[in-house]
Formats: sequence, C-alpha cells, structure tokens
Amino acid sequence: MRKSIATVCLSGTLTEKLTAAARAGFDGVEIFENDLLASPLTPEEIAARTADLGLSIDLYQPMRDIEAVPEEDFVRNLRRARHKFELMRRLGADTVLVCSSVSPRAVNDDSLAAEQLSRLADLARESGVRVAYEALAWGRHVSTYDHAWRIVEAAGHPALGTCLDSFHILSRGSDPKGIEDIPGEKIFFLQLADAPRMAMDVLQWSRHHRCFPGQGGLDVAGLLRHVLNAGYAGPLSLEVFNDVFRQADAGRTALDGLRSLLALEETAGVLPLPAPVVPSGVAFAELATSDPEPVGALLTALGFTRTARHHGKPVDLWARDEARVLVNAGAAGRRTDTALAAVGLETADPQASARRAEALLAPALPKRRSAQDVPLESIAAPDGTEVLFCATGRPELPSWTDDFTRTADNATADRTADNATADRTADRAPANRTPDSTPADRTAIDHLAFTQPWHHFDEAVLFHRTVLGLSPHDTVELADPYGLFRSRALSASSDEDGPRLVLNLAPSPEEDGGTRARHVAFAVDDLVAAVRGFRAAGARLLRIPANYYDDLEARFDVPEGELETYRELGILYDRDEQGGEFRHCYTETVGQVFFEFVQRSGGYRGFGAANAPVRLAAQRR
Amino acid sequence: MRKSIATVCLSGTLTEKLTAAARAGFDGVEIFENDLLASPLTPEEIAARTADLGLSIDLYQPMRDIEAVPEEDFVRNLRRARHKFELMRRLGADTVLVCSSVSPRAVNDDSLAAEQLSRLADLARESGVRVAYEALAWGRHVSTYDHAWRIVEAAGHPALGTCLDSFHILSRGSDPKGIEDIPGEKIFFLQLADAPRMAMDVLQWSRHHRCFPGQGGLDVAGLLRHVLNAGYAGPLSLEVFNDVFRQADAGRTALDGLRSLLALEETAGVLPLPAPVVPSGVAFAELATSDPEPVGALLTALGFTRTARHHGKPVDLWARDEARVLVNAGAAGRRTDTALAAVGLETADPQASARRAEALLAPALPKRRSAQDVPLESIAAPDGTEVLFCATGRPELPSWTDDFTRTADNATADRTADNATADRTADRAPANRTPDSTPADRTAIDHLAFTQPWHHFDEAVLFHRTVLGLSPHDTVELADPYGLFRSRALSASSDEDGPRLVLNLAPSPEEDGGTRARHVAFAVDDLVAAVRGFRAAGARLLRIPANYYDDLEARFDVPEGELETYRELGILYDRDEQGGEFRHCYTETVGQVFFEFVQRSGGYRGFGAANAPVRLAAQRR
Repeated sequence: MRKSIATVCLSGTLTEKLTAAARAGFDGVEIFENDLLASPLTPEEIAARTADLGLSIDLYQPMRDIEAVPEEDFVRNLRRARHKFELMRRLGADTVLVCSSVSPRAVNDDSLAAEQLSRLADLARESGVRVAYEALAWGRHVSTYDHAWRIVEAAGHPALGTCLDSFHILSRGSDPKGIEDIPGEKIFFLQLADAPRMAMDVLQWSRHHRCFPGQGGLDVAGLLRHVLNAGYAGPLSLEVFNDVFRQADAGRTALDGLRSLLALEETAGVLPLPAPVVPSGVAFAELATSDPEPVGALLTALGFTRTARHHGKPVDLWARDEARVLVNAGAAGRRTDTALAAVGLETADPQASARRAEALLAPALPKRRSAQDVPLESIAAPDGTEVLFCATGRPELPSWTDDFTRTADNATADRTADNATADRTADRAPANRTPDSTPADRTAIDHLAFTQPWHHFDEAVLFHRTVLGLSPHDTVELADPYGLFRSRALSASSDEDGPRLVLNLAPSPEEDGGTRARHVAFAVDDLVAAVRGFRAAGARLLRIPANYYDDLEARFDVPEGELETYRELGILYDRDEQGGEFRHCYTETVGQVFFEFVQRSGGYRGFGAANAPVRLAAQRR
Repeated sequence: MRKSIATVCLSGTLTEKLTAAARAGFDGVEIFENDLLASPLTPEEIAARTADLGLSIDLYQPMRDIEAVPEEDFVRNLRRARHKFELMRRLGADTVLVCSSVSPRAVNDDSLAAEQLSRLADLARESGVRVAYEALAWGRHVSTYDHAWRIVEAAGHPALGTCLDSFHILSRGSDPKGIEDIPGEKIFFLQLADAPRMAMDVLQWSRHHRCFPGQGGLDVAGLLRHVLNAGYAGPLSLEVFNDVFRQADAGRTALDGLRSLLALEETAGVLPLPAPVVPSGVAFAELATSDPEPVGALLTALGFTRTARHHGKPVDLWARDEARVLVNAGAAGRRTDTALAAVGLETADPQASARRAEALLAPALPKRRSAQDVPLESIAAPDGTEVLFCATGRPELPSWTDDFTRTADNATADRTADNATADRTADRAPANRTPDSTPADRTAIDHLAFTQPWHHFDEAVLFHRTVLGLSPHDTVELADPYGLFRSRALSASSDEDGPRLVLNLAPSPEEDGGTRARHVAFAVDDLVAAVRGFRAAGARLLRIPANYYDDLEARFDVPEGELETYRELGILYDRDEQGGEFRHCYTETVGQVFFEFVQRSGGYRGFGAANAPVRLAAQRR
C-alpha cells in the first residue's frame, strides 16, 4: 500500500522533514499546518520540492472547530476555509483533515453538524478538494469514529468522507469492528499511530511525577491544616519520586525541597515569614559582555541612548524612556558572548525583599560588587541570574543610580537615571506627560525571558513565586523545530504594570546554553512607528515567513492595509478570546541575547505563545 | 516544625544524599531501603554519619505486603520483619513504614489485617520500634487513609499508628477533612508530596506519547484489517506526536516509521515479507580495542583460552567451551576504549536472514571486511552494533571460522572453532557429552546487553523484534544512583537456548557513552566453582555491599552456608515466583565493557533486575 508520514512525526525544518521522508522511501506526506507556517518556502516552492523528492501531498491538516456552531461563527469558518482551500490548490493537496470540534461554542446537534459540513464540502468541491472528517478522542460532542461516520453519512456529500485515526479509536477502547460497515470509498484517509498502554494510572503518576509541595496542583497546604488540627506533632517529611530529581544535583534539590516546606508552613499558617514585597517594576536589565560594541550598535538603532556611566566600572546605562539597559563590559575575559546576567527589580522596601529572600533560602550575593559601590540587596536566582532589589528615586534609600554619572551624549537623557520612578508615575497619568512625548515614547521593559537549566524548571517557578511573591500563569508548550519548549510566565497579580518574568525550559540538556529563549522585551505604544524607526536606523529584525501572514489573514479579520504593514515590517499578531491584541517583533540575536518589542492593547495578558513556533523556527535560520 | 526528606528524593549515593539534606538545613531523613542496600557503609556507619551531620533518621521504609495474608505467609513476613527491626536498631531508626498490601495473596479482611498488624506491632515493641501503616493509593484492598486508620484503630496497639501521605490521599480525590478525626498521637508520620494535575488524559497521551505501530500497546494491525475489509484503498499514513521524535534525527525517525508500516502490513496479512529466521544462538561476541592486553588478561583469568587467530588481521578468538569472544585489535587508532562492537548470531540460513533484514530496511554492511575474508551477511543495528549472520559448522556454507587458524596455545581448543555447532548439539544431550566435561564446563553466551542511544530505544526494540524475529519481554526500570534506566530484553520465544539481547536506555543523553550497561554475560553450570577459579586466577570481580546480603537473608530462605559463600564471592541471587533461581556476578570494567557470569536453574527467565540498583551503584564506585 502507499505509505505516508505526517510532517509532525519528524524533527527539523519542513525541508529536512520532506527529505527524510523521501530518503526513507515514503510515497507521500501529510503537511502539518505549523510546519508550513514556519517555512520560508512559498506553497508553490513546497509543492515543487515535494514533487522533486517523488512525494505526493496526501493530506493537509488540521482544520479545527468548524462544525455545529452558531451561524455567525460558521460564516467566519467558511471564510477561513476558503483561504485554506486556496492554499491547498497552491500546494497541490487534495484532501483536508477536519477534526471534530472542541470549541465550547459547538452544540450537540448532529443534523446541524451534517448541514454545515455539507456546506463546507460544497465549497471544497468548487476548489477541487475533499474534506475528511475525523472524531478526536477528546472532541466536545463527537469523539468516536462511528459518531463521525453517522454525521458524514447523513450529510451524504460526495466531497465529504471520514478520516480514521488508530490512536483516536483505540485509545478510547472503541471496537474497530464497526469500521467494516463504512463503505471503503467514504474512508478518505487512514492515520496510524500506536501508543504505550499507559493512561497514567496512579501508580505510574506516583512513581515518576511527584514534586515538592507548591510545584504541582494538589492542595497540600489544605491537607496539612487538617493534619495539624488532628494534633500531629511529628516532622513534615518530603517523599517525592521524580524522574528529574533522580538526575539533578542533590544539593540543589534538597534546598528546593526545604524551601517548599517553608512556603508550605507559611501557607498553612504555622510559620510567619517576612511578607513578600511584590516588585512594582523593572529598574533595569543588565547585559554582561566582553565586547560592548555590537549590542551598543543595536541599542542605538533601536532608539536607545547611552545616558550614564558607572563611576568606577565599564558599565554603561542605555535608556529609551523608562526602559533601561545596563551594558557591563567588566566581564571581559570571563564570558565571550553577550548575555542577560542581571535584573534590577523595583521594590518599595529592598531590605524587606531581602529578608523574605533570606527566609526562603535564596542565596544572598554581596551587597557591593566593589568597594565604592552603593550597597544594594541582591540574590541569585536558580538559573544564576542576579536579582537586585532597587528603590529608584527614593532619596532616603541608597539607589543604584547613585553609582552612575550622566554622560553628555544626550540632553533628553537627564531625567532617565534620576527620575525614573517619578517618570513612570507621570506616564501612568497621561495628563501629566511631558510636552515632548510622542506616540512611541512610553517605552518600558515589558518582560524578561530566561532559559532555565535542565532539571530546574519547577524549582525556578517555586523560587520566583515564593521569594518575589509573583503569580505563575499556566504552563504552555512551544513547538520548536527540534523539540518542545515548556514556558511559564510569572507576574504581579494585582498590578498590570509590575514585572513579568517568563521562564523557558529547553527540550534537552544540549539546549541549556541556547540563545533562542533568553531576551528582554520592551513595550511601546505604537509598534509600527517604532519599527519603521528601527529600520530607518539600520536595525536588523527577525524575518517572518510569508506563509505566516497568509494564515493570519485566514484566522483574523485584520484590516488589509494593516496586514500588509505587518508583513512588510515582520510584525507578529495575536488576539485573545476577549479581543485583547498583541503585536510584537524580534531583533537579531547578539551573543546570547535578543530583544523583542511589544504593543499590548485591550487587556491582552499573554506573550504571543501562538506565534512562538514561527519565531523559534525563524531564529533557527 | 521539624523537617525531613526521604533519601529517594535526591540523586547520588546515600552519603551524597545525607550530605545534601544536612547542608540544605533539614532536621532528619527517611532512609529508603534501596539506598541502604546499595551503600558500602554498615548500618552503624550510616547512623554515625547521619548523627555527625546533625540529622535524625525519622523513618525507615518501606515494608511491603505484610498484612491480611494466609498465616503461613505471615509467619514468613514476621521473620523478614525481625531482620528489619534488628537493622533499624543498628541504624537508630525508631519508626518503620508499612504500606498496605498489593499482593494477590492478600485478602479483603480488615479484622485479619488488624490482628496481623497487632502481632507485627508486638514484635516491633520488643525491638523498641513502632509501625506506621499507610494506605497506598493502589493498595489491593486498603487504598484510602480512612480505611487504613479504621484498621489501626481496631488493632488498638500502642506501637501501631498510621502514616499519612499527601500524594496517596489527594491523588485519589479523598476528602482530607476526615484526618481531623484521627487522634494526633496516632498519626505516627506525615509524608508530603505534590504532583501536577495530569492523570494523563487522552489529549496529553495523544500529544506526547504516540509512537509508531508496533512500538506501543494498541492493536493497530487489528484495526487495519477492519479498515481493509471496509474497502479502503488510500495510503497508510503515520501521524505520531511524540516528544522524543521531535528531537531525534529526522532521517532515522523516518526509516523507523517506514519499517513499522512494513511490519504492520505483514502482521495484517497484506504484505508477504521474507519470513524471519530466528537466530538459534550466539556464535561470538566481538570486542574492538586499540589495546588487547587488559581484556586478554581478564579473559585468561576467567578461564578463556586464545584458540585461534584471524589469517589476515589482528583478531584473536578466545573461547571457554561454547562461549567465544573475538578481540579485534584492528581498531587501533580509531577507538581508544575496549568496546562491544559486533555480535555473530547463529542462523540456519544466513541469506534468508539477510533478505528479511533488507526487506525491513536494515542497513546492510559489506559482506567482506577485507578482500581475503569469507563473505558473511551482516547488518548494522540502530545502536551501530554490527550483526553478522553465521552458520557455524555447516560445511556447505561459508563460515566465519574459515578465516581463523588454530593456534598451538591449547590442545583442548581444537574443537572450538571447527565444531562449535556440533558441540552445542552434543551439549544439549548430556549423554553425548565428552568425557572431559566438568561441572563448570558448559560455558556459553547467556545474553548481551547494549546501551541504546538516547532517542532510539523504541526503534531498537522494533528493529530486533521485526528483523531478527525475537520476542520482547516487558520493559523494566532499573534505578541507578543518578537516574532510572529503562531496560527491555528480547529472546527467541520458542527456544530457551536462543540468543538473548538486553537493550538498556540510560536516563540522560550524557550517559550515552556510559559503560555501565554494555556487557557480555556467560552462562555456567556451577557459578560458585567458576568464581573460585576466577579469584584464584586473579580476576577482579565487582564488590557487593554487605547490606545487600543482610537483605537477602531477610527476603529469602537461603541456606546459611550458601549465603556466606555468596557474600564472600560477591555473587548476587534472585528467585522468581515459580521458584526459578538466578545467581550472577560481574567482573571489573575494561574500557567500555564488562562481563557477567550467570547460573540459571528452575526455568528462571529474567536477568536479575531486582539486583540492578545494587550492581549499578557498585559500578559507580
């Protein structure tokens, strides 16, 4: 029989995947949409490459959340489908996979599903393609193959058939015998996968996936309160079977475990720790480098000005409005690459921050880096990043800015170092803004992203949550061409303007020193204007493939001109369920660091995770 | 509150774990039994070390499958408990964890459980210790904390209390409020762990753990037959979301996938492949080395004789009865360490074996390594091992032995090269054995163990199963001090004497070149006699800690003198459910290879997995 393989089975770029499939001797491929979006090749080039390799494109996949939805949704879905059918024509693919809907807007109505799939099939037939409808095992209303087939049968449309997937059928324990009742010509496609019989029973869960209290999802503190109410007076003892801990450094794991118990006691109300002082913002990001020129050139093109210099060390302060970056060339000889080495967090009470950190076993760093420096409270995060507690612009407290002397480079820089905090307050109230404000004038640090060392992701999340009092968001997975990144953001829950930290875990230890997930993101008010400025100044920005914009057009109602602007400038776009919008773009990488510029509106709280696969693939090139 | 940590949470040796716990600031530890067994320290030394570090031993754990069993079982359990209570006295540990029984021999009888636990507690009290009874979430009859408490309450014994574990309670969704009804002084211990809310729903299972057909546990071939019966004529398409495949080399993954489809078609009866020729034995194991002296010295001490030499290359044949090892010094310059590089498998029809391999995309290697060599069919296994198909002693076929010339070293070696197969046949029928046979005279290769490259474990199992026609055993996990090994054996299902291959997967990529899981195991009839011979000849064998033998005494009725012999000689012992016995020992490691000697009796089919943690820890030293 002809044999195909979905590109999602293989690692690497789309080109690498196609080559591997052809060399192994496959006859065809399924093109997984994300692989196409991340590819710099046009659909026509992909078609030509595939044909040259002797492969057919047997399936394009997936289209999701199409059927059994309110009419207004379905009209939007048809619009999206028209884009995809046109793309398939360019690719030369004649079958598209439609998975059963998982959307909460889908209704449990087989006749509506059949009617809408039939209308989709009408459109498909016009475009010369056919639709293979598949029951996802976790579909909202349609989750078994026989149910999907009943809907296809009811629709009775020649361009509509079913797709069978061995995983979806067998994982649910469905009896595959009933397949024989489906006419063979209506089985448009067969996808095959096996899986270990795991389904993670509680024994396996226990033996491999336990973690320290506060690192998982169980209410351990609630349980502890009941145990204490019972009168238990023995020790709190950690018993954690965890595949990662077995390999990690025992000393670090032990500290991490003890920290988890201290935080647990605090949550259970039996140990009063110094209260957390949630940071209110980012005072600065500090890059260490042995060669400050390339990053200086990039910062200049990004509209930053060198405004001040450390009085005793080769450290420059670069600023663009409220966004401050220290470039520390004192690391010469120790480090070759430019790297994100430290972050200054604004806190109302640096000493209280330090007391909290100490109580939670955070390693304190020397208060002064050299004899003449202002003393600053500072700790080491689990990934080695230095975290300094800053109280910028509070004259009664020592300030990191006291170590810096204004340079004559730029007159507008005056306010940056001395009045940074006052400025932020002013910027929050637009009425108070200084007359020279321009729309792209409110640059500030939006978030910082750090790659975490292999084995220490949960430790890092617990550390930042407990020591800094930040709130973790959900973990998301980001598909890189060579593996999955785990990513988890933390932010001040009460304060939209507080610092946001994003912790990324690379898919394998080899990626530990990887450069593709460690960066500083700056927020601006008008990203398009800012990017035009960067380009005029010669900054090199990350190039985004055209396929991404074709997909954007299918997914969102972005006004035509706006989309063209994004395409021209390499701006990525996302929109959340509530209509909040996120526009962002990336610079080239210098050493081990790169910059992102973001524009948030409508209360968007995420970080553009939907765009991460395209960005990560682009950074691979 | 006092804070403890179970040694199982931390990586490394027991000493490293204790040090890490103390440095982090814990007050005490739970000693996990396996950590003690693998330690070279005596219980008294562990007690002293722990005290020096300022730690108490708050718990010794676990004791399993104690209660609610037939009286004869319980008497044996009490005997085991007496050993453990004595051990606890030496350790200075006053509380032991007893987990609820998972044994199929346990009965659902709370009053029997209470009565037997009460008798256990009597014995404990005499020894000055107390018993903390815990409900495992997967306990056979007792799986909830309130059930365990009802049994403890019914027993009403001062030396019997309950142990609570947050994972076991919360993972089952039990309401922890009821804990408050337990008197605090009867809660002897509290173990804390969290866990991600996963329980592996089908979506997560699908997104991360799919694999190619034949690599998992789903009946994909059965499903395919139904689809074909329905009349489907489209392609077979692989759609596999797998975290490992995302990182692995795409070319290898594609080949692996295509092989899985070919094997699937064969299983479903739609593709006739050349039938597998199951190998009937191991002709030889070949070591490559740049320095043959150390391994030659070791083989000599192990009773091997250099019997023949390759006519054109620096390859020596070493033999001890039917066990043949080639030492190939032709790799000088390419490889520094001695390594297991090739295996010759006996097959009735080498060409048919090669046709099967070719049909399943196994990479064929050149038939002759150099111009004057006998042509031999040979392929490369996924881990790079060369597999040669041999038909030793069949004059009508080319034989690998034709390349070898007998050396004058040893008269008894005459028969080895020429008549190896005939000899094996003779050995199977004891009546035909040659008069000079001695009890330790039937040495043969029992199994070969290979470390698999990271990312390619499932591929290797599929390869050996389909290409060689071997049957995989269940996957087992072996705890190394620094992580878990996965291990899976394959053997000829129909033939006890056929080759056995053991594939091991190291816990992390760093271990890929690891030396601790690649070895040749030789079967002998009388291991004790053989080991005495090795020691007399100066062979260095792996030293096994005394704690292991103390535990052996508690677990099995090994006659006193026999146990002392094992302890003296470093022999490990295992017994299966059916009473089959396994005795084995290990040599020192030379380069990247070591040897094992095994003695099987009573139909024992395993590989001593229960002893692997002790062996792996000993090899770390």
